[in-house]
Amino acid sequence: MPSANVYNVTEWSVGDPYEDVGVVINSMIADIKRRQAVSDLNDGGKPGAVIYIPPGDFRLVTQVVIDISFLRIVGSGHGFTSSSIRFNTPLHEMKQWHEVWPGGSRILVDISGEASEGEAAGAAFLVKRAGNPRISSVEFADFCIDGLHFSGAPSDDAENSYRNGKTGIHVASANDSFRITGMGMVYLEHGIVLYHSDASTIDNNFIAECGNCVELRGMGQASKISNNLIGAGYIGYSICAENFGGLLVSGNNVFPRGRSSIEFSGVARSSITGNRFHSFYPGMLVFSGNCSENLVSSNHFLRDREPWAPMTRYDNGLDDQFGLLHLNGDNNSVMSNHISASIDPGFLKPADEKPVIIRLVSGRGNYIANNHIVATTASSQANDTPNSACFSTQVEAILSTKNLTALDVIAIKVEPGSVRNTILDSGSDAQVLIDRAVNAFRGTPVPGQ
Amino acid sequence: MPSANVYNVTEWSVGDPYEDVGVVINSMIADIKRRQAVSDLNDGGKPGAVIYIPPGDFRLVTQVVIDISFLRIVGSGHGFTSSSIRFNTPLHEMKQWHEVWPGGSRILVDISGEASEGEAAGAAFLVKRAGNPRISSVEFADFCIDGLHFSGAPSDDAENSYRNGKTGIHVASANDSFRITGMGMVYLEHGIVLYHSDASTIDNNFIAECGNCVELRGMGQASKISNNLIGAGYIGYSICAENFGGLLVSGNNVFPRGRSSIEFSGVARSSITGNRFHSFYPGMLVFSGNCSENLVSSNHFLRDREPWAPMTRYDNGLDDQFGLLHLNGDNNSVMSNHISASIDPGFLKPADEKPVIIRLVSGRGNYIANNHIVATTASSQANDTPNSACFSTQVEAILSTKNLTALDVIAIKVEPGSVRNTILDSGSDAQVLIDRAVNAFRGTPVPGQ
Amino acid sequence: MPSANVYNVTEWSVGDPYEDVGVVINSMIADIKRRQAVSDLNDGGKPGAVIYIPPGDFRLVTQVVIDISFLRIVGSGHGFTSSSIRFNTPLHEMKQWHEVWPGGSRILVDISGEASEGEAAGAAFLVKRAGNPRISSVEFADFCIDGLHFSGAPSDDAENSYRNGKTGIHVASANDSFRITGMGMVYLEHGIVLYHSDASTIDNNFIAECGNCVELRGMGQASKISNNLIGAGYIGYSICAENFGGLLVSGNNVFPRGRSSIEFSGVARSSITGNRFHSFYPGMLVFSGNCSENLVSSNHFLRDREPWAPMTRYDNGLDDQFGLLHLNGDNNSVMSNHISASIDPGFLKPADEKPVIIRLVSGRGNYIANNHIVATTASSQANDTPNSACFSTQVEAILSTKNLTALDVIAIKVEPGSVRNTILDSGSDAQVLIDRAVNAFRGTPVPGQ
Repeated sequence: MPSANVYNVTEWSVGDPYEDVGVVINSMIADIKRRQAVSDLNDGGKPGAVIYIPPGDFRLVTQVVIDISFLRIVGSGHGFTSSSIRFNTPLHEMKQWHEVWPGGSRILVDISGEASEGEAAGAAFLVKRAGNPRISSVEFADFCIDGLHFSGAPSDDAENSYRNGKTGIHVASANDSFRITGMGMVYLEHGIVLYHSDASTIDNNFIAECGNCVELRGMGQASKISNNLIGAGYIGYSICAENFGGLLVSGNNVFPRGRSSIEFSGVARSSITGNRFHSFYPGMLVFSGNCSENLVSSNHFLRDREPWAPMTRYDNGLDDQFGLLHLNGDNNSVMSNHISASIDPGFLKPADEKPVIIRLVSGRGNYIANNHIVATTASSQANDTPNSACFSTQVEAILSTKNLTALDVIAIKVEPGSVRNTILDSGSDAQVLIDRAVNAFRGTPVPGQ
Repeated sequence: MPSANVYNVTEWSVGDPYEDVGVVINSMIADIKRRQAVSDLNDGGKPGAVIYIPPGDFRLVTQVVIDISFLRIVGSGHGFTSSSIRFNTPLHEMKQWHEVWPGGSRILVDISGEASEGEAAGAAFLVKRAGNPRISSVEFADFCIDGLHFSGAPSDDAENSYRNGKTGIHVASANDSFRITGMGMVYLEHGIVLYHSDASTIDNNFIAECGNCVELRGMGQASKISNNLIGAGYIGYSICAENFGGLLVSGNNVFPRGRSSIEFSGVARSSITGNRFHSFYPGMLVFSGNCSENLVSSNHFLRDREPWAPMTRYDNGLDDQFGLLHLNGDNNSVMSNHISASIDPGFLKPADEKPVIIRLVSGRGNYIANNHIVATTASSQANDTPNSACFSTQVEAILSTKNLTALDVIAIKVEPGSVRNTILDSGSDAQVLIDRAVNAFRGTPVPGQ
Repeated sequence: MPSANVYNVTEWSVGDPYEDVGVVINSMIADIKRRQAVSDLNDGGKPGAVIYIPPGDFRLVTQVVIDISFLRIVGSGHGFTSSSIRFNTPLHEMKQWHEVWPGGSRILVDISGEASEGEAAGAAFLVKRAGNPRISSVEFADFCIDGLHFSGAPSDDAENSYRNGKTGIHVASANDSFRITGMGMVYLEHGIVLYHSDASTIDNNFIAECGNCVELRGMGQASKISNNLIGAGYIGYSICAENFGGLLVSGNNVFPRGRSSIEFSGVARSSITGNRFHSFYPGMLVFSGNCSENLVSSNHFLRDREPWAPMTRYDNGLDDQFGLLHLNGDNNSVMSNHISASIDPGFLKPADEKPVIIRLVSGRGNYIANNHIVATTASSQANDTPNSACFSTQVEAILSTKNLTALDVIAIKVEPGSVRNTILDSGSDAQVLIDRAVNAFRGTPVPGQ
């Protein structure tokens, strides 16, 4: 007898998965709760279930609400394709296209959540449960959540607004041991929002062309954001966390745009290691609200200018004095990072001041050592070739490292409010602004001519 | 015709998978061996099989014995939930709980292995084969192995003893190219024990509340323990390896308790990089028995005090002179790590001596550079609120980085038996105990007042 | 009604999957294209499909040609076993073997591609599509591609030649968001070849005993080669990339042999972090053709001598003056790496010159800091015990770190053509060859005697 705990959205008696897969999944969850009603029966009782979403286009009109532990929703394809390129391609050209929509095991988020009701209302998948224990081991794997369209301002460019009030997965209650792996998310205002997470795994997902990608909110501990391909819009965060301890952000390839690539607020004793970050704006890493005892090491940071014409009108509003890395907090370690900044001086804001790479705004006891800062001028030109050339435009920009001229920057600026820091081998005497009376400093030796 | 090599424990003619899934799987393995009897037939012959465990509570009374290559046992849910919180919750409170047991594709280990017979006897899954070639490519994925209860001393607190003689997966023979991914393991005395491993992958598992989590024994090479969430009990290792070359331990989030977070014995030319380690005791990283030419870099180490009342009576018995990192061996590299120690001085052992952070006990030619050691006093108070508050208790403890006072520590202690080491920028002159006549030393510059 | 988008090669009306699975899969792809003919229907239309390969031996005579997005081909077992050991085992001994071929969901590549037609002709899976958009989100997961035999020169040792004109996966067209995960590949001249890749994931695969393992060709950006076990033959690359920006190579365990472990040509702003590399020859990391602004950090490099008798007659032809790391390009960062070289001086080429560890051949502005170079003499003896002892031979070799004598090496050699570099704490004054008039240098302090 096959297990009743294995569900397939295309083989269920309630609802039409192509018209509203939300009704189907909610019906399955009700069935699981009906069948698994006793919490302690023969040393078990509520093992949960797996719901399979085969490849296909499944519209979601009704929000899925998950309030049981051990539920796995799994598909057979993350199905990402660039909707951003598609919506910036002339219609006549697109008629020749092989396909125009994302695919795989694809959820078309067609929910009517009002932005005014908050993010939870616009979530395709909402996880919420009161009482004890915390909801545990809900898993999302290997399917696609597609928000279809952006609809925000400016109205003449809505599809580039990164706003539509839609969220992929919103976890509102305290939770334990969740796993989100192999997912694809595209054209959502928020990809993943987890409140009060303990021991979460967010690994090997593809979350791009979303307003925000991964947000750890409320508070939390001992989680892992790793090995993902991530890239938010200019309005939001690629990765953010607040009031979190013991977070490990490692092995991610975080591409533009992203208001910030990664932003921590009140985060302590966490790690950002071995990532590759690429951004078009200042403030690509931000520590706000006192972040302490964190490690930032072995990361590659690249900031250059937006090379793709449809997006050059947007940025995150920050100027180059903000700092490419903008840090507040105590006893952090910033070690062994490579930081490349390549900017046409004509685009610096303000144009007459040296841009700041690492800015230590407040806090004490930080240790900044062995960072290699490479600043060059780039003669970036916005590309006006057909939109489908986006790929080669981007690759050309990133490979343009020859014949660059050195750009004069402030490698590190330690503000007066920040004291007792140690800065070693991360910039020459001339490149570091620091009060040596209250901080320790050893300049990187300068090669002769 | 569907493939005969795809098995489902709920669709098999022999045994009852809910009463004893071990009988069912052993019968399947016998069937595979019967059907795949010829080793070289038309360029193949023994491709193995996959055994699927759907979500459900499957008791295992009979040990599964695997002696064929290319067997994959796979479920649809790692099913972790905290049994530790559950067993420390008052019964009356627990009656309101939504669920009390782990779930997913769950194996209830109810085996009668006597501890006196050794770990193999208590293993739910035993892999063992004599002869050639080494058994290859056995895979375990995405299911849960639950030991149900701990039963060791003290008898008035057996469920917190981390002892029950049960092991999740025990591989007794030389093996090649095994994969253990996406598993959940809980309340086992030993999670994974691999002897004589070559090219193993242990990735993205959730192995917690086990006496020991991952043990590489005997000898081995070229393996990978990565991207796991791991946390052993105070009696054992979160990760240990012996006589191993070319091991890569990376991207793990290793939480307490763990007698040690990671212990190497006779391990050479291996890496510990980009991990986050959190421990409640000294000796969180131990190199014993001559470990040489290993790399420890870009890790975040945090040691503070147990904040959860039910566990404050236990520790690993070591005192603070042992060293948070305790190293024996030659030519190792310890670079670019962040190490936080936050201890109420009243709990130091012995109370009147400065605790030792990195202790180089023996060996020569080690290179310790660019480590940032942050030592602070914490006024940790054991939390006596209801047990279900464990989560917020822990998060509060880990986020308590404000208004801390500096704690006077020995950042690095190089014992007389250890010579010709190089210590750079990892502690000030005053914080490092070293014989400069036989070692090289450059103190971290000290900020002014 | 079950989804028509779920295919199983053992349940299809066209072809015999055991005789030629290529015909079966191509027929399925034709079926998908027939069924999914409209590109924009109700906000979707071409979601793709999943093709399942159960465990079994499936011969592939006809090349699979993929020209649709969102196709996932997935098996239930990577099935690696060492064919190299098997083909170096005496026939009489092998008669006792349990099994002799790789397994899992196994593709036996029996294609008749002529080497003269190029690699694409010999590919088991060829992905190729003209027009727009770029083909997206094709996924390969959890199956085995086995080239069966090597057939190159020398003819008396063809099975050790690493040449047979066969490729596992060849992607010829510009592509986006591909995923290759959990695969096993063995005895192919080329494992994975991707041209013009954007946002690819190559994660957690086992690709060994192939001429070349992972090759990113043409150009590309923002991709990830992570967490793999990889080891090429002496003829080729374990990992190579050309004209790539924003590549992240992290968490891989790359074992011998490999002409080079990793080779970049014209690669910029990319990262090699947290890997473990083991090689038997010089040139284990090569940057050619101007590679700029790349980060190489927290890696463990080990070079020793081939310990296994059948392979001692082969090497990559380079001598020890070439440099273990051979670098051309500007503004790269090489930081916090551990590098072990253990060579019997009698095997040095040329024998009378000190071997070079890091060789900076050309370029400017490179930053090389905090690398720990450990050079020792090893009395390596080729092992002539029975071939099945390969494992213990290798482990013994890698663990042989005791009683080694220091080997005199050139830690870093900066050629006259390379200027304005900064070399810190990576070798003593005596070990580094550098023109201090045009470079910055701080020698590692030397311990006293």
